[in-house]
Amino acid sequence: MATAILPWKQLLLNAIESNSHLKHSSFFLLATVGSTGRPSNRTLVFRGFEENSDKILINTDSRTRKIEDLKHCPFAEICWYFTDSWEQFRINGRVNVIDGSNPDTIKLQQRERAWFATSFKSRLQFLGPNPGRPCLTEQSLQESPLDNSSGPLAAYCLLIIDPEKVDYYNLKSSQRILFTSNQSVNGEEKCWSSERINP
Amino acid sequence: MATAILPWKQLLLNAIESNSHLKHSSFFLLATVGSTGRPSNRTLVFRGFEENSDKILINTDSRTRKIEDLKHCPFAEICWYFTDSWEQFRINGRVNVIDGSNPDTIKLQQRERAWFATSFKSRLQFLGPNPGRPCLTEQSLQESPLDNSSGPLAAYCLLIIDPEKVDYYNLKSSQRILFTSNQSVNGEEKCWSSERINP
Repeated sequence: MATAILPWKQLLLNAIESNSHLKHSSFFLLATVGSTGRPSNRTLVFRGFEENSDKILINTDSRTRKIEDLKHCPFAEICWYFTDSWEQFRINGRVNVIDGSNPDTIKLQQRERAWFATSFKSRLQFLGPNPGRPCLTEQSLQESPLDNSSGPLAAYCLLIIDPEKVDYYNLKSSQRILFTSNQSVNGEEKCWSSERINP
Repeated sequence: MATAILPWKQLLLNAIESNSHLKHSSFFLLATVGSTGRPSNRTLVFRGFEENSDKILINTDSRTRKIEDLKHCPFAEICWYFTDSWEQFRINGRVNVIDGSNPDTIKLQQRERAWFATSFKSRLQFLGPNPGRPCLTEQSLQESPLDNSSGPLAAYCLLIIDPEKVDYYNLKSSQRILFTSNQSVNGEEKCWSSERINP
């Protein structure tokens, strides 16, 4: 008898829970495509879901190359491998880039909430010199009156990934499921279908 | 005083060694670009370096979508994060796809060597049904007289990545180094330059 398939978000929440004893379990990889057409790939930290949705939040520095990549091609694929439960999630979707110049007040508020949900130590990273640029030994950390109540720094950027396709693979059970979203008629609500596929 | 920079291959060999107690330390992520222009990302297993070179070997199934991706765009980026030593390697380069139809005898021999260097259990995977296709409950494993001395199965494909750029980031020391290759005049020998960049 075929067993029922859980929604992918529930499978992901279960995996996060069962691997939470490992510090690196909140790290995933994000692939983007640059203006040269070549792929890029880097480790990032999961910052939770947008409230009451399946959209995934990521903090980043607006000076990194991934921002240029996402302006060129707004699609990305997260690959998240859980080393203890042997589960892989490949999450493909469109990325919304929210920096301080965003014209949408709601989105700016969302960026601010995400900023304050981040540890003070992590916020300090956005004071550092331009990531990926040559390291000048004489440069020092930007002096700034950053304190716990200071709002988002200019370099702070929130990424929100809106999943369209999720490929789930459990390497212990050899079960692999492809979840595909279909936008409903009003374009607001997503409807997911799922199918078992070969590992 | 600035400390000397080790070549990236030596840094990678050191990271492999110092994380070798973790089973998942041989897993990395490979990003490619599909014909739609969207990125893809998946976990793969490091199969060593090509003899006397810095080219990286990967086993894959020729029926997977990454092969189509690589025909469309032959560039890929490996992102390899070592969870114990907190080191990240982003390795960008051109990928050579070697399946059984390759016209080059030397490459076919290389594919055969890589096949026999793979465990018998791993070789059996290439007898499975078409990866990523809908799972038909009635399908059974292809019956085959595969034994330990059987040569490469048709679905077995060797990927060889020729690195052109390596971005190394040590999250413990906050040291980040960009390695860039410059092909020498005869086009045969690679020459690497390195530069410290901001984390």
